[in-house]
Amino acid sequence: MYDQIKVIAFDADDTMWVNEPYFQELEKKFCGLLEDYLPHHSVSKELYKTELQRLPLYGFGIKTVLLCMIETISRVTEGRASIKMVDEVIRLGDELLQKDIEMLDGVQEVLQHLKGKYRLVVATKGDLLDQERKLKKSGLMDYFHHIEIMSDKKVPDYQKLLKHLDCAPEHFLMLGNSIKSDVLPVLELNGHAVHIPYHTTWVHEVYDQDVVHPNFRQVEKISDILEFLP
Amino acid sequence: MYDQIKVIAFDADDTMWVNEPYFQELEKKFCGLLEDYLPHHSVSKELYKTELQRLPLYGFGIKTVLLCMIETISRVTEGRASIKMVDEVIRLGDELLQKDIEMLDGVQEVLQHLKGKYRLVVATKGDLLDQERKLKKSGLMDYFHHIEIMSDKKVPDYQKLLKHLDCAPEHFLMLGNSIKSDVLPVLELNGHAVHIPYHTTWVHEVYDQDVVHPNFRQVEKISDILEFLP
Repeated sequence: MYDQIKVIAFDADDTMWVNEPYFQELEKKFCGLLEDYLPHHSVSKELYKTELQRLPLYGFGIKTVLLCMIETISRVTEGRASIKMVDEVIRLGDELLQKDIEMLDGVQEVLQHLKGKYRLVVATKGDLLDQERKLKKSGLMDYFHHIEIMSDKKVPDYQKLLKHLDCAPEHFLMLGNSIKSDVLPVLELNGHAVHIPYHTTWVHEVYDQDVVHPNFRQVEKISDILEFLP
Repeated sequence: MYDQIKVIAFDADDTMWVNEPYFQELEKKFCGLLEDYLPHHSVSKELYKTELQRLPLYGFGIKTVLLCMIETISRVTEGRASIKMVDEVIRLGDELLQKDIEMLDGVQEVLQHLKGKYRLVVATKGDLLDQERKLKKSGLMDYFHHIEIMSDKKVPDYQKLLKHLDCAPEHFLMLGNSIKSDVLPVLELNGHAVHIPYHTTWVHEVYDQDVVHPNFRQVEKISDILEFLP
């Protein structure tokens, strides 16, 4: 079945390197900032409410999160917070934006093995410059034929990507940690998808039903794909 | 000379549609917010200072501007401003993000005329989702073979674009309103560039020397290019 694959697309955050734990750490610190006003879990809920409302306008990524945090501070404190709290959010953002890349196990070996046999691409959403920065820092750029930073990962976004890569869905395999973003839309287009779960998932990406599809499989770790990719 | 052109790349903001005047309007309102603390021109200066410092980390676009405005409020007021001022910045951002597209004269006719004869692409920097939104709203999507939203427009960025388009520099023509971003790096690569000045330019893009290069020309309005593009 996999002998017809020509293009393999890799998700980036939490597929090739650690990401969500850093955002959770950021959120924990943010909740700490507001603990005089609300308990942590309520702050988290308020932040997520802001994010849901803002995503269609702002798109994904770290700058959106920072803007949402700032907006949430004002709402949760009913305008009583000191503006200095905003400085702290911006400082926390700087920390995250300058973090080193922590690669996940096996990624480089897998890319090394697949290089030359397939067209390898990155298909990730998020902030344009931030994702480019992470890719550069990862040292993986040379493995990839193309980097696609997408504003979203829905069916039309993958259609655009496939058209752009001049690749039929049956020749396309997407690898990633999010069922919602890396698997379902690709399967809907009759492409192939492999799910590599990560131990933690942003609530926005959580999907808790079983996926049953002939073009789908789940593996435990990224190096497992070498068992079935010739 | 222009008979070897195969790809024509269009800048977007202030080349195909109005942009900078909206940002200047936003900045004016922002300066108004802080007029109890500083005169308008000093607020502008402080904002630009923040932007210069932030651009390498945040990249271009509206979310960066909003974050820089918020940071500037805190610095200029030495933390004394009410956080409610931040709500106003976010509201001003919403206004801008939802603005209608005001096309510049002649753009659609030019695209209509060139379509089929050249590969037409968009090469723009800025916020990923915001630029996609503007393109959709412009109704011009169907004219373009490819949309490239770039994190910057320097020589390596154009090198990447050309590689990606599989286009030699001598077959590439870039059209835009910024000498710094749309002209100089393209000429450095031996591509062709046409400058279409817009009546107002963001200070970051201002360039006040004459450009002399065999592959360069300046026109008054976009439809002038039809005079020399066969």
